[in-house]
Amino acid sequence: MITTSSREPIRVTDPDDPRIAEFCSIRERDLTGRHGQFIAEGTVVLRMLSAAHAAGQGISAVKLLLLENRMAGLTQLLDAFSSDVPVYVASQAVLDRIAGFHLHRGVLALGQRRIVTDLLPHISALPASSLVLVGCGISNHDNMGAIFRNAAGFNADAVLLDETSCDPLYRKALRVSVGSVLTMPYRREGSAEELLGALGDARFEIWALSPAGHVEIGDIRPGRRVALVVGTEGDGLPSAILQSFKSARIAQNPQLDSLNVGTASGIALYHLARSMGRLTEPT
Amino acid sequence: MITTSSREPIRVTDPDDPRIAEFCSIRERDLTGRHGQFIAEGTVVLRMLSAAHAAGQGISAVKLLLLENRMAGLTQLLDAFSSDVPVYVASQAVLDRIAGFHLHRGVLALGQRRIVTDLLPHISALPASSLVLVGCGISNHDNMGAIFRNAAGFNADAVLLDETSCDPLYRKALRVSVGSVLTMPYRREGSAEELLGALGDARFEIWALSPAGHVEIGDIRPGRRVALVVGTEGDGLPSAILQSFKSARIAQNPQLDSLNVGTASGIALYHLARSMGRLTEPT
Repeated sequence: MITTSSREPIRVTDPDDPRIAEFCSIRERDLTGRHGQFIAEGTVVLRMLSAAHAAGQGISAVKLLLLENRMAGLTQLLDAFSSDVPVYVASQAVLDRIAGFHLHRGVLALGQRRIVTDLLPHISALPASSLVLVGCGISNHDNMGAIFRNAAGFNADAVLLDETSCDPLYRKALRVSVGSVLTMPYRREGSAEELLGALGDARFEIWALSPAGHVEIGDIRPGRRVALVVGTEGDGLPSAILQSFKSARIAQNPQLDSLNVGTASGIALYHLARSMGRLTEPT
Repeated sequence: MITTSSREPIRVTDPDDPRIAEFCSIRERDLTGRHGQFIAEGTVVLRMLSAAHAAGQGISAVKLLLLENRMAGLTQLLDAFSSDVPVYVASQAVLDRIAGFHLHRGVLALGQRRIVTDLLPHISALPASSLVLVGCGISNHDNMGAIFRNAAGFNADAVLLDETSCDPLYRKALRVSVGSVLTMPYRREGSAEELLGALGDARFEIWALSPAGHVEIGDIRPGRRVALVVGTEGDGLPSAILQSFKSARIAQNPQLDSLNVGTASGIALYHLARSMGRLTEPT
């Protein structure tokens, strides 16, 4: 039985309709800042947006734009948004002209994240037993998405990004994160030195991940508050960071480039989370 | 000092020049089979192609197409190819019209892989101590590239793919693999059942990786010949495989989707390779 949503969709027939202007040419605009606004794409991310919207922790949905024939299958999900979130629908042809490419998923949302710059209170408020991922200079959106997905998968408490890292709310990073950017607490502000200084003051044990690290990641016996620091692919972490903190490595074939930073974060977080007893295992 | 290559480049001014027809609209053609031919993109992959070409193990370079101003910086690399590999050069405008998009890397090569269907001899010839990654139904090129990059990084002996998996030589998979597809021995043929049957006959210990796996990956004490089996994202491995073989899991937050298969392969391979003593660690 197909039920219809209690929400009346608004039909869009003109790709230049100002009411859906935020969705125009999203592939190009993906690289421009939007003051906390972001584009969520696909059903999975929409579901995470719905959950974050309902939780009222600073993430909200502004408007939705759907392919007309997707309405019926999304009834329950649409009803989870408050009634002041308008739902626009369009034909595939109009939708493709709005987005600027063939949008086969047919599900877009405009969201808004409240911008907060409360790094020090945020760090102080972390639990006594905490696992935090710190990203420095992460410039690739796929890697950013992978980092969030892994942080969520391995029960990290927060992601902290330096100001040179890219915005995790960019459409592609959000999609690769499978929506985790919307549920994982994070901050993006300050320099790496400032972030790590604040974490040190809060008695975090800081481990910089690098192919040149001193301790094999699988051998670390972490304390109660741990920050794992990962850097950009290619250059890796600045030597000032590697010299100032403990460093961990992931043994691999030395003839090859270092691992992808997303994969490396997954391997390291799995180990740390497991060693800290943060992963429940079926018995 | 900039030295010039001993090789005389051939200038292309017409995007429809038949001599470079294989490079036309590569983004669209990425999804079509080419009987073992493939497009390598970027300096890093070109270097791997050069090494594979020199090794004479069935991979060869057919022709190169470069942005004119890249020649000077690539002298050494170009000289590593045999002199019967023509090098075409073009201006940025012509190159972009050939490729069908802005090719800022400016480095393309057409390669050829000898197609071999020798699964059983290949498996028999693996070393007494072997680590093999088996992919079933891997349909996403990014994931395929990540799997090869991890297999190479953690010193696997081979990658075996069932016939439903995508071609690792596709441009994007090759690029994400950082060229590892050109150096890692692999086969793509037969069904998953046939692959695993052959591995079982060759006394491989077979571990299927799944969120529902019975043994935590970090607790496995592997034997001398180990095959790790990973499936497609979303559906995962077919239940017939999970029921027929030992299964391993990676503990994670149960509320979330399973890990990305590329990341999961990295975590599992790191553990297996390390437990098997295949990763040398600095002392």
